[in-house]
Order: sequence, then structure tokens, then C-alpha cells
Amino acid sequence: MARVVVDVMLKPEILDPQGQAVQGALARLGFGGVTSVRQGKRFEIDVAGPADDDLAARAEQMAGTLLANLVIEDFTVRVEP
Amino acid sequence: MARVVVDVMLKPEILDPQGQAVQGALARLGFGGVTSVRQGKRFEIDVAGPADDDLAARAEQMAGTLLANLVIEDFTVRVEP
Repeated sequence: MARVVVDVMLKPEILDPQGQAVQGALARLGFGGVTSVRQGKRFEIDVAGPADDDLAARAEQMAGTLLANLVIEDFTVRVEP
Repeated sequence: MARVVVDVMLKPEILDPQGQAVQGALARLGFGGVTSVRQGKRFEIDVAGPADDDLAARAEQMAGTLLANLVIEDFTVRVEP
């Protein structure tokens, strides 16, 4: 059993209204000094079998095919044993 | 300038229909062996000032107050320089 963690974030040049809403709320709650908030998605995927290079390649494919919209989002993939 | 990364995931005992939908889609796309998918949120927060213990404490407060619903979600906080 291996775990794949995929983080999907909007590309830096894409406006992030959710993140801006969080930034405004943090300021109203008294948390000062926050200069930027970006909100994205995190997927924790459990996969049967070893945490090897083959799984890493398949995880990249999963993320690029389904989990991220590559026009507006970037992703990072980590495979953990 | 420091960066705070907050990962918010549903508690293990809470049903995750988004994750289940992703799991079903991965199976239909031919990605076998996936036994569980959980979908959560990731926040990248840039804060002025040093990445010290004070920021770590404030980040925990931000997450517990605003970013996570502690009834149904768990969170982890990382502070990066």
C-alpha cells in the first residue's frame, strides 16, 4: 500500500477569488501582515502495491488527466510508502 | 516574508463524496488499484515577518478559527522561511 499526495494550485497568474476572500477574512479577524492567500486542492490517494517509479509515473498521469486543469492549474505529486 | 501552508482534510470518519467521485473516475480512466481517495483543501499564505514560533502559533489560530471546520475537518500547519 502506497500513498500518493497531489497538491493542485491555481497558476500564479490566475486570479484566486477564494484566496482573496480568505485574506480579507483573516484581516477582519485581526491576523495582520498577510500579504497573499492562495487556495487549492489536496488529494490523498491510497494505491495498492509498492511506492515505486511506476506508481510515480501513474500518479503524474492521474494528476495531469483528471485532478488538475492544466490550463489554469499547476500540480505537484509526492509518493509516500 | 514567510510562507504558511495549511492542509485541511475531512476527518477519517466523515464521508467524502468528492473523493469517492474521483476514485470512480480514476477507475473508469483505467487507473487500477486505487483503494481510497480523500479530497481536501490547501492554503498557501504569505505573511510579512520572520518564520518563527510566533508565526507558527498565529498560523495554528488562523487554521483553527477560519480555515478548518474542526467538527468535521483536521488540519496541519507548516511554516516555511
